[in-house]
Amino acid sequence: MATAIPMIELWRGGMLESEHLGHAVIYGPGGIEMAWGDPDAVIFPRSSVKMIQALPLIESGAAQAAGLTDRQLALACASHSGAALHRDGVAQWLHALGMGEADLRCGAHMPRDREERRRLTCSDEAPCQIHNNCSGKHAGFLTLNRHLGGGPEYVDMSHPVQQAVKSAFEDVTQEASPGFGIDGCSAPNFATSITGLARAMQFFAAASPAGSRREAAAARLARAMAQFPEMVAGEGRACTELMHAMGGRVAVKTGAEAVFVAILPEQKRGIALKIMDGGTRASEAAVTALLIRLGALERNHPVVDRLLTGTQRNWRGIATGELRLAPGFG
Amino acid sequence: MATAIPMIELWRGGMLESEHLGHAVIYGPGGIEMAWGDPDAVIFPRSSVKMIQALPLIESGAAQAAGLTDRQLALACASHSGAALHRDGVAQWLHALGMGEADLRCGAHMPRDREERRRLTCSDEAPCQIHNNCSGKHAGFLTLNRHLGGGPEYVDMSHPVQQAVKSAFEDVTQEASPGFGIDGCSAPNFATSITGLARAMQFFAAASPAGSRREAAAARLARAMAQFPEMVAGEGRACTELMHAMGGRVAVKTGAEAVFVAILPEQKRGIALKIMDGGTRASEAAVTALLIRLGALERNHPVVDRLLTGTQRNWRGIATGELRLAPGFG
Repeated sequence: MATAIPMIELWRGGMLESEHLGHAVIYGPGGIEMAWGDPDAVIFPRSSVKMIQALPLIESGAAQAAGLTDRQLALACASHSGAALHRDGVAQWLHALGMGEADLRCGAHMPRDREERRRLTCSDEAPCQIHNNCSGKHAGFLTLNRHLGGGPEYVDMSHPVQQAVKSAFEDVTQEASPGFGIDGCSAPNFATSITGLARAMQFFAAASPAGSRREAAAARLARAMAQFPEMVAGEGRACTELMHAMGGRVAVKTGAEAVFVAILPEQKRGIALKIMDGGTRASEAAVTALLIRLGALERNHPVVDRLLTGTQRNWRGIATGELRLAPGFG
Repeated sequence: MATAIPMIELWRGGMLESEHLGHAVIYGPGGIEMAWGDPDAVIFPRSSVKMIQALPLIESGAAQAAGLTDRQLALACASHSGAALHRDGVAQWLHALGMGEADLRCGAHMPRDREERRRLTCSDEAPCQIHNNCSGKHAGFLTLNRHLGGGPEYVDMSHPVQQAVKSAFEDVTQEASPGFGIDGCSAPNFATSITGLARAMQFFAAASPAGSRREAAAARLARAMAQFPEMVAGEGRACTELMHAMGGRVAVKTGAEAVFVAILPEQKRGIALKIMDGGTRASEAAVTALLIRLGALERNHPVVDRLLTGTQRNWRGIATGELRLAPGFG
């Protein structure tokens, strides 16, 4: 903890107002290439590892048996906004499985998507579990579970679905996970080091479709995410906008409490970072800086302005400040 | 910066997930009584100093001339939710001045209050400047401005209203402000040290209604805030709930980017703290801990459970973690 380093600063009136500390690792074919803070810091990756949680879905043959498309696989890796395209995508997926909303175990929350939120609010309709940003992941769990023949409580740690996830997780991070927490969506979330997480992303980046079963699954998931950015998050969201900006060449994923990862297949590199205070504005800015550093993202793309370099403005459009990279980072 | 200390931690699955660093000072009649982090750290107090920004409103005689009530003065010190009671309070205040929404210079944003947001959203009505959480402060500025006879651009640094605010600010902090930033509501926000901010809150705490003009104004404002907690923020908000819990004996105020202050008249003490990453959950938890430490807040009050000691639960009500005080704080 003590070794987290300043990464992102907020300036106002020519003075430093706030700052965010974190850890980050860039992992390449030969191992760690760059690290900031403590590469051994243990974190909960939260939703940044949904592509790992989806590996057993493909490796088991469940995805093929259910005829899942790449668009659905992108949704399995999503923290989606609960917009109509996500809602309908999950609802149709469950229907095709012969299942429904009640089979989910993710809980319900009001979706982030403005239009869908408005529709629910103004019609006095409660959000359902399909609106949960993790409902695509859970549809994937249900698909795997039907294939494995497990019981309905598929988020229990002892359930075959989560045992398969844990095994895949420890394999691609190349670490024995020191423990797990319960995520917002009730699924177990396995802890790992920043290095373990970056190593896992490097595995996805280097995975060959013609390689092992696990490699083929990883390659397909990374490609699916990069090809369907709108399914992975939603309009205006950092993941979606960053992947659009990189034209399908890179997959990125955020996780709660300010985790961000990136998979760069052309470079066979993975990125993992965690802002220790959980501030999402900083994890978004930090991953933007590292993607620019690696040449994957154009410095003058509008999304860079929005997430990192742009002037911050108040309700009347008056400039109030800006984010800056802390000295020594990015 | 480097000397900010860990204050609030988030734990999940028995492991530390996130942590927040900050600075805090408790200032008493004899000076600094306790400090964590760097008491000389310079910060933007943001909305935590609305009671300072309201001093000239009373001292000038403008409040008396306009017949302002304590309830209106609480609104002048508010970062309100834009609920009907705030909206109507500001609208009626402006009307009594012979002014209207167009005279405000705070900008418009969607209110935080759920019912008012719903009303606007479902009727396709845009929020107006009266919904701005700072509109009470700006109604105070307009009241002062009418008294001073200044021009309409009352948020300009060179305007008599802001010059009066600056003078009061430097007097009660007992520091020459090193500079200012533009706040979300377009008003200048003067920088000060954590100690200067705590010293100002101590001035409010010790101010006698029978003292100097400035003291009398400070005493009235602190009393107004503590007596009308629902005007200062809104239902369910930390400021309102904490003041309710302390039964009118203490005034507290949050500021953007995780500032929190408290005025404790019975103890003649002031508190100021800033979480350096701007995380509000941590500033709310930290001020709760310090209010308990000083005996102003009951440890077993439900608001303590909500802001600090309670189990965090996910969408299905399953326990996921908890906030903890970092070793050495609180």
